[in-house]
Amino acid sequence: MRRESGRRTLTTVAAEAGVSVSTVSKVLNGRTDVAPCTRERIGRLLRGYGYQVAPGMQFGVVDLLIGSLHGPWAEELIRGAVDAAREAGQSIVVTTVSGPAEFTPWLERAARRGTDGVLSVLYLPDAGERGRLSGARIPLVVIDPPTEPGSDIRSVGTTNWQGGMAAARHLAELGHRRIAAIGGPERFWSANARLDGYRTALLRGRIPVDEALVSRGEFTAADGRHQAHRLLDRPGPPTAIVAGNDNQALGVLQALGERGLRAPGDVSVVGFDDVIAAWATPPLTTVRQPLAAMTAAGFRMLRAGAASSRIEPQHVELATRMVVRDSTAAPGDVNPGPGCTESRSPRK
Amino acid sequence: MRRESGRRTLTTVAAEAGVSVSTVSKVLNGRTDVAPCTRERIGRLLRGYGYQVAPGMQFGVVDLLIGSLHGPWAEELIRGAVDAAREAGQSIVVTTVSGPAEFTPWLERAARRGTDGVLSVLYLPDAGERGRLSGARIPLVVIDPPTEPGSDIRSVGTTNWQGGMAAARHLAELGHRRIAAIGGPERFWSANARLDGYRTALLRGRIPVDEALVSRGEFTAADGRHQAHRLLDRPGPPTAIVAGNDNQALGVLQALGERGLRAPGDVSVVGFDDVIAAWATPPLTTVRQPLAAMTAAGFRMLRAGAASSRIEPQHVELATRMVVRDSTAAPGDVNPGPGCTESRSPRK
Repeated sequence: MRRESGRRTLTTVAAEAGVSVSTVSKVLNGRTDVAPCTRERIGRLLRGYGYQVAPGMQFGVVDLLIGSLHGPWAEELIRGAVDAAREAGQSIVVTTVSGPAEFTPWLERAARRGTDGVLSVLYLPDAGERGRLSGARIPLVVIDPPTEPGSDIRSVGTTNWQGGMAAARHLAELGHRRIAAIGGPERFWSANARLDGYRTALLRGRIPVDEALVSRGEFTAADGRHQAHRLLDRPGPPTAIVAGNDNQALGVLQALGERGLRAPGDVSVVGFDDVIAAWATPPLTTVRQPLAAMTAAGFRMLRAGAASSRIEPQHVELATRMVVRDSTAAPGDVNPGPGCTESRSPRK
Repeated sequence: MRRESGRRTLTTVAAEAGVSVSTVSKVLNGRTDVAPCTRERIGRLLRGYGYQVAPGMQFGVVDLLIGSLHGPWAEELIRGAVDAAREAGQSIVVTTVSGPAEFTPWLERAARRGTDGVLSVLYLPDAGERGRLSGARIPLVVIDPPTEPGSDIRSVGTTNWQGGMAAARHLAELGHRRIAAIGGPERFWSANARLDGYRTALLRGRIPVDEALVSRGEFTAADGRHQAHRLLDRPGPPTAIVAGNDNQALGVLQALGERGLRAPGDVSVVGFDDVIAAWATPPLTTVRQPLAAMTAAGFRMLRAGAASSRIEPQHVELATRMVVRDSTAAPGDVNPGPGCTESRSPRK
């Protein structure tokens, strides 16, 4: 159907239904900001003209489950979902769920009030929970799956392996040879993928991987600080550290400060996430994870409905991007700065 | 009614209604995780025994409007509301609303799907918008009102004036005399109250207020950095800086780093909020704002219903708390540290 004749059909349907063309267009696109009975009448007319009408969401709300609201990481995920929902005339319900004990009461509440689907961040419901979701007709998309999801689960992640590789390659290209890595917890797929990317970059750069320079910890500033002290206490300390995320990288900067060292003059530091990296001292070089785009993509998967899941891939990874700021430099590229010769103290 | 006889009545009601005592207790407390018809039947029995049954929320959702999801500040506000809602068996819908252009489409969506009330963070609906909320029977509580709300509007804030005073007093007690302030934008009640608190602390400490040491900017790291450079460029630069919030304080730390200066050796720095302050280098002394408690208090105001608003105050301020970390010290208390004498570089 040509564009013009399509437009003519919409005008005809609008006239037949006694509504505006923009209302007809809303129904065609599955938006919910049209009264249910009007939506049904227009949908019937459109289908009569051979249009495929978007399924439309019944309840006007989609649930977002998120493990913790204790790090700045969650805010961008919420923003992506909220922005995508607004575009579709929908609303986002936010609930913290990090385990089965929180999943069950959430599911009971959601089933009672009704929901058009759930985006579950970092929480992969088990087979039993997925069965209960299906029973309640609540479609699921997992965001940043903690472990590799089965092929029957739709999910959106990010290119963690490529990101970890880009971080280590950036340091190798600057001339670093003693590049340490602080990885996230082994229970996270993402943490393992980032660390594998780091190893690959070293191997490709013909830099031997020294396992004494690889440590692991929780994704917190406290663990980043602790692991950094451990690495810097070694006889052959690193000239650069790739952290598992920005929180860990902020902890590395704290450890450097406590030792009277600075980034990048003494040690180069790279984070992962790019949530608060720009506000660090110095502003942190990091691997940007498109958190908002991930939940927005998940929302659109839910909206597209189950039909599309037979033709589209079940797991999508959105690209990371290397963001170079001021915490990385060539090794030995030390600019001691005025603070290290004579204090340019502003006092008196 | 004594506690025991009260318990006996609940058991009797449970037996009469054919439900568990815990279900009766839920209805008594206005929780919504009981099917509507059961709730009504139990409510009738309870009222027959002279109980006052909490009004109960009809839709199971409360809306949280928030100006921006671009700073870590929002996450704690969301957490407070989500946690309070979970306790009550309710859900929180999150929407970004910073002006009338976003308020209207939100109100249309919320009215269509139903909501038990709205917590509006930093956005004070005007008289017309409040009229439309009343018309849609959506009760309102404003969180952190940007301007002083009228006496007919329920709101929850924090003790900004006392917080600003505590920050400046902390520095005065350390012995600082040239204490600068970077205030937030004049359009915010909170920013003005914090700055007034700063002036009061100086006056009480018999320190003359030097208006050349008072500047204003947006609540961003970029503005904190810019204003700090301006203040430090002056002939009689400050030995301490009170920032309007943590973002500004992080910008002050960046400016110090760019000049080869350090906190607290060269300049002491205090923030406001305590959201990301603990992760700064050095960990930031700040004034803690109880953001999660503010939205939780707002949620409970909505739940208590309009009836309680005739006996309880319309505006509540939750207390700030001074949190002393490593970015403040006595002036001249300079410990240059190993980084300033000879670089303890870990290289080679």
